[in-house]
Amino acid sequence: MGVRIERIARDLDTINSFNATPGKGITRFTFSEPYMQARAYVCEELQKIGARVSTAVAGNLYGRLEGSIRGRPPVMTGSHIDSVLHGGRFDGVAGVAAGLEVARVFAEEKIPHRHPLDVVVFAEEEGSRFGSVMIGSRAWIGKLSPDDLHRLKDSEGIPYAEAMERAGIHPDDDRLLTPGLMKGMIELHIEQSLVLESKGIPIGVVEGINGIKQFVVTVGGVPNHAGATPMALRQDALQGAARAIAAVEDIALREMGGHTVATVGMLTCEPGQANVIPGRVRFSLDIRDLDAERIDRAAQRIITVIETICRDRGLTLEIKPRSDTPPVRLSKELVRLIEETAREKQIEVLRMPSGALHDSSILPEVTEVGMIFVPSKNGRSHCPEEETDLEDIRTGAELLLRVMAKLAG
Amino acid sequence: MGVRIERIARDLDTINSFNATPGKGITRFTFSEPYMQARAYVCEELQKIGARVSTAVAGNLYGRLEGSIRGRPPVMTGSHIDSVLHGGRFDGVAGVAAGLEVARVFAEEKIPHRHPLDVVVFAEEEGSRFGSVMIGSRAWIGKLSPDDLHRLKDSEGIPYAEAMERAGIHPDDDRLLTPGLMKGMIELHIEQSLVLESKGIPIGVVEGINGIKQFVVTVGGVPNHAGATPMALRQDALQGAARAIAAVEDIALREMGGHTVATVGMLTCEPGQANVIPGRVRFSLDIRDLDAERIDRAAQRIITVIETICRDRGLTLEIKPRSDTPPVRLSKELVRLIEETAREKQIEVLRMPSGALHDSSILPEVTEVGMIFVPSKNGRSHCPEEETDLEDIRTGAELLLRVMAKLAG
Repeated sequence: MGVRIERIARDLDTINSFNATPGKGITRFTFSEPYMQARAYVCEELQKIGARVSTAVAGNLYGRLEGSIRGRPPVMTGSHIDSVLHGGRFDGVAGVAAGLEVARVFAEEKIPHRHPLDVVVFAEEEGSRFGSVMIGSRAWIGKLSPDDLHRLKDSEGIPYAEAMERAGIHPDDDRLLTPGLMKGMIELHIEQSLVLESKGIPIGVVEGINGIKQFVVTVGGVPNHAGATPMALRQDALQGAARAIAAVEDIALREMGGHTVATVGMLTCEPGQANVIPGRVRFSLDIRDLDAERIDRAAQRIITVIETICRDRGLTLEIKPRSDTPPVRLSKELVRLIEETAREKQIEVLRMPSGALHDSSILPEVTEVGMIFVPSKNGRSHCPEEETDLEDIRTGAELLLRVMAKLAG
Repeated sequence: MGVRIERIARDLDTINSFNATPGKGITRFTFSEPYMQARAYVCEELQKIGARVSTAVAGNLYGRLEGSIRGRPPVMTGSHIDSVLHGGRFDGVAGVAAGLEVARVFAEEKIPHRHPLDVVVFAEEEGSRFGSVMIGSRAWIGKLSPDDLHRLKDSEGIPYAEAMERAGIHPDDDRLLTPGLMKGMIELHIEQSLVLESKGIPIGVVEGINGIKQFVVTVGGVPNHAGATPMALRQDALQGAARAIAAVEDIALREMGGHTVATVGMLTCEPGQANVIPGRVRFSLDIRDLDAERIDRAAQRIITVIETICRDRGLTLEIKPRSDTPPVRLSKELVRLIEETAREKQIEVLRMPSGALHDSSILPEVTEVGMIFVPSKNGRSHCPEEETDLEDIRTGAELLLRVMAKLAG
């Protein structure tokens, strides 16, 4: 048995032919016309192999190949087909195309499976249209209510529920995914980073999704005249912030054992004129790790150092927590199963955390979840330059097929 | 003989009662209604003491007390009454009020003077209305042509020359200030910085106006995902910029002998999202010194260090020169005359550069120029908090009176 990469390539090409911004990356917002065309293509492909296609709450789509023993809980694979604005060809779509191909091989080669095999397309993973990520999976497990789907609106004020109706989607399966209902779920996804490529390893086995603590830091100085104020008499908010930002990297890089990542991604400087000493600098601080305790330790260290910098420089300091998402551990059993299966096929794998969120960060509340990462070229993602070698997708899909066969078997 | 501070205080209060933004600092744009009211007040006060008031090119105003010997070149004092948006009560106005009071004492006490004494109000020093600084003084010495005054427009598209006419100003003295026409000029001005206050010295004797070299620095990295990209694999433009900004301060503070000031006042960070590693950071670099060679040396050192930082971090770098204004030396003779006069009155003085530009930076091309600084509280200027003790203004005006008496005598 084996996957056929030319069919996966065709799925990728076809799905990406439905695109609101040709020539400027992929833009396929949830329930938009290109989205509905791509969704229809996935439906047709599923129906061709005899899968029964259903629409679940919030517009999540799944195609089921029934198992040989009635009543067994299904195993699921898939991902999403919505994209960010001017995004790439692989984020989400790689997992849907790999899932489609796995189902085709199951059907064609009549791979024995007692459990149903579900290929899923989660709705609105990126949050590009309705401003909130993973709406589909969160609604499916009951974390978002029908009321929430009326409350969440796009930039034109159209509520999620209404946009879904307008697109002609009418769920025919309103059951929530509750614990015990599924046997497990495996998502194949591009890594969206540089780790696999830099190590020359084709497959990442995701141990969990990094937790995130975010803060907004405001450093206050005195906005005096840049020409008339001697260096020694300045209270320059940006000079304090520059030392603070350097400390963020230094601590994450040298004191946290290589696990924690810490980023200052947003910074504003006021009044922002070349001839005025900065009076106020505001910046974001984003700390992530698979270990909640290490996140707290890094945050505490960084905050302490920033406090010292500002005190020494006579600057005011305000640090406001902005968000706090705990890490999510994926299934240890599935990590082992994926590793063991890879070993049988002599595929080298690397255990790693996922820095980005996925629908797979939502599902561990209701089932066992595993994730397979394939390398991203230059680590680029969410941009037109997003790229993954087809050969790597083939390796990932092959591994997915074998893992699904064991799980559903 | 002596100045009367209560009259200076009344001048300050009256001029500042003409204000477009009461309660929000002083806003008095050139040729606006409050400006014309303040200008009329200065005219009246000059006429009261028998000065002949004239309007020169570009709307510069001066009142002359004729000297006892016909044909001698005049000595000039004064400053400006236009302000920035939401500015302070002293910038410019302190020098005009001190000049008025000096002329009053000359007239009342019949201080002998062979040279004419001119009290001047330069037009559009701040550049707040027509986007270009020191238009009045530059036009007066012929550095701006009548054509330029038709070309320079305010935010509503009204040219300078037309705005002047609409305000009812019709120059009656169209002579340019050419070399040899004047004996000298002394401007009293607030320091707009912290040096005098921090040293407890009431008077600054300005040796020159700092030269300025400005650059725009652009650091380019790779805008990868903040969660998925390990610290060691990042090309973070803001981390490079933070080190560069720290180096700007370190070099100016520790390597330039305490003379040079260097400032990063403007910074933008793209894409500017908490969860994306910065891909591009652009910042201003402003280097000032009274010594042109030291400016070049500091610039070279800073650029070399920034180049090293970016090379080591795999970041791209572009450094574009933006402006280059050479330093201006004021008259050494007048520096000595001001110091000597201060010594006679037991007034402590400090020789210092001016970090900010003034009309006095323009006039050295045509005459001997001196400047007297009085302290700014907390160094604040160009803001409602701008403040100078009346006692310090009295000391400065007293010194100005005695220097003018010697110069005009």
